[in-house]
Amino acid sequence: MPYTDSFTGRRVLVTGGLGFIGSNLAHRLVDLGAEVVLVDSLVPDYGGNLFNIEDIKDRVRINIADVRDEHSMRYLVQGQDYLFNLAGQLSHIDSMRDPYTDLDINCRSQLSILEACRKGNPNIKIIYASTRQIYGRPQYLPLDENHLVYPVDVNGINKWAGEHYHILYNNVYGIRATALRMTVTYGPRMLMKHSRQTVLGWFIRLAVSDQEIEIWGDGNQLRDYTYVDDAVEALLRAAASEQSNGQVYNLGAPRPYSHLEVVETLLAVAGTGRYRLKPFPPERQKIDVGDIYSSYKRIQSELGWEPKVDLREGLARTVQFYRQYGQHYW
Amino acid sequence: MPYTDSFTGRRVLVTGGLGFIGSNLAHRLVDLGAEVVLVDSLVPDYGGNLFNIEDIKDRVRINIADVRDEHSMRYLVQGQDYLFNLAGQLSHIDSMRDPYTDLDINCRSQLSILEACRKGNPNIKIIYASTRQIYGRPQYLPLDENHLVYPVDVNGINKWAGEHYHILYNNVYGIRATALRMTVTYGPRMLMKHSRQTVLGWFIRLAVSDQEIEIWGDGNQLRDYTYVDDAVEALLRAAASEQSNGQVYNLGAPRPYSHLEVVETLLAVAGTGRYRLKPFPPERQKIDVGDIYSSYKRIQSELGWEPKVDLREGLARTVQFYRQYGQHYW
Repeated sequence: MPYTDSFTGRRVLVTGGLGFIGSNLAHRLVDLGAEVVLVDSLVPDYGGNLFNIEDIKDRVRINIADVRDEHSMRYLVQGQDYLFNLAGQLSHIDSMRDPYTDLDINCRSQLSILEACRKGNPNIKIIYASTRQIYGRPQYLPLDENHLVYPVDVNGINKWAGEHYHILYNNVYGIRATALRMTVTYGPRMLMKHSRQTVLGWFIRLAVSDQEIEIWGDGNQLRDYTYVDDAVEALLRAAASEQSNGQVYNLGAPRPYSHLEVVETLLAVAGTGRYRLKPFPPERQKIDVGDIYSSYKRIQSELGWEPKVDLREGLARTVQFYRQYGQHYW
Repeated sequence: MPYTDSFTGRRVLVTGGLGFIGSNLAHRLVDLGAEVVLVDSLVPDYGGNLFNIEDIKDRVRINIADVRDEHSMRYLVQGQDYLFNLAGQLSHIDSMRDPYTDLDINCRSQLSILEACRKGNPNIKIIYASTRQIYGRPQYLPLDENHLVYPVDVNGINKWAGEHYHILYNNVYGIRATALRMTVTYGPRMLMKHSRQTVLGWFIRLAVSDQEIEIWGDGNQLRDYTYVDDAVEALLRAAASEQSNGQVYNLGAPRPYSHLEVVETLLAVAGTGRYRLKPFPPERQKIDVGDIYSSYKRIQSELGWEPKVDLREGLARTVQFYRQYGQHYW
């Protein structure tokens, strides 16, 4: 049976469900016939946005709650078949300014969610959204899952811990869990209010608004980009698979792009905006990791996932979305 | 100048200072002419014991405080030249039963100590006591510092995070810090009240008390052992070195020993006690890692450390200590 059949009529909980990836996942799950509960705290600046699910609001249940709220989470995980555990503090800068909040969200809450599953719903399958940010400065490229983890910010350390709690609970308690180390994900419904979480989102906003984009450094740094529909497919494949239990998978792209290439492609598909190069701010230089991109061979061979939307097409769809709905995101 | 001169007349703070390694370190620091402040919470079961510093109590300052107490720690780090950051929750079993306490001590408190140093004493040098437990099940032996980290308990995940906070604050903020991944450390002043923190300590107590030691499994599992004086020398060398800043070092031993060999050596030097083999309890089997021992090549070549006390000699000294002072530890 195709992996997408695994969700028809099944009960699915999505933390961070009003955020960028969570809301795109919700659209797909609703289409597949799942009963979807979206949990989100709507913490200002974190990416949750009710407009993200405006067109499916009658087909999902929204539950406003913070993953730090142990009691609510204990109730909400009960009876669910799948948990897509996407809520997180994602800003590297914020994690350095306030490491305790990052710890509470990315570590303590993950432990309490896992404890809630262990005690109240041990048959659930959990997919945890991790990040390739945890690797730090690459010793070789592309990064594979055997690369040493040397995070360059508090967020990377805490996300790694959150990921490993999941793998541990899989291995010790049999709470099935899989972690995906996401690369730069982009597409409709991404946060556009500030640049602390995603620089590409900010660039897209500037392009759509016909403003000037500042690229730090020489623009030659390489990154890999995942269009959100591809990320959603990876989440679904990991959830539907039993082989994925206890595993960690990189996402990645067929080739990396330099910042310059990305911006030039963006400006070409948008037809508006412009850019200039600017020296790196010193506080960012210290936590910058240079070129970085991942190999997705493991998930390709084990789960059959590969990216389908290339950068130009993905950017074109994204620009189109924000041309239409930008006022709900600025 | 010899590295030991780095401590004469210098101000040294030791967290976990009334514990096993902390109190042995305190003895050495006092002999080297340091001004020593020992911080310990004396949490029952954690290893702090006032008898550990009975013979030097007039030459150190004792400050009862918990590393979770941010305000006290903020005051205590001020003006110190060195911080030996040894306080931790060390029981793997306890970390699974109560992951939140382990998180508070091994993650949150480490962040707050580092923040206290960043804001109140950025010139301090910190040595963090990490553990080779973080590696999890070995993919190859001996473990070197490039081995992937796949902890098999909550404690291992949190200790890794605590270690990496230190490396991060070194790299980003210039708070000089070094982490040592300790192996099984043993010797005088180790905890003997229960077996949750250290099995070897418990075995020594049984041997000295002429009781029966139960070895789980076939007794062929290999481990490496560090006599506490050697561990103290590693801590001092790391503190005195500038090359060690931002580095992680394994400790290790010239050769590993099987549990059977250790127990037979122990019984031989003690002249009392006996043993029998017993099947592994299922809850321990799941988090057991099989053979495990580390390579200490990196610290040997960079800091000139190597172990000097072999197992038989170390066990003989330990047995002698507990024959004399056992009543303060049982």
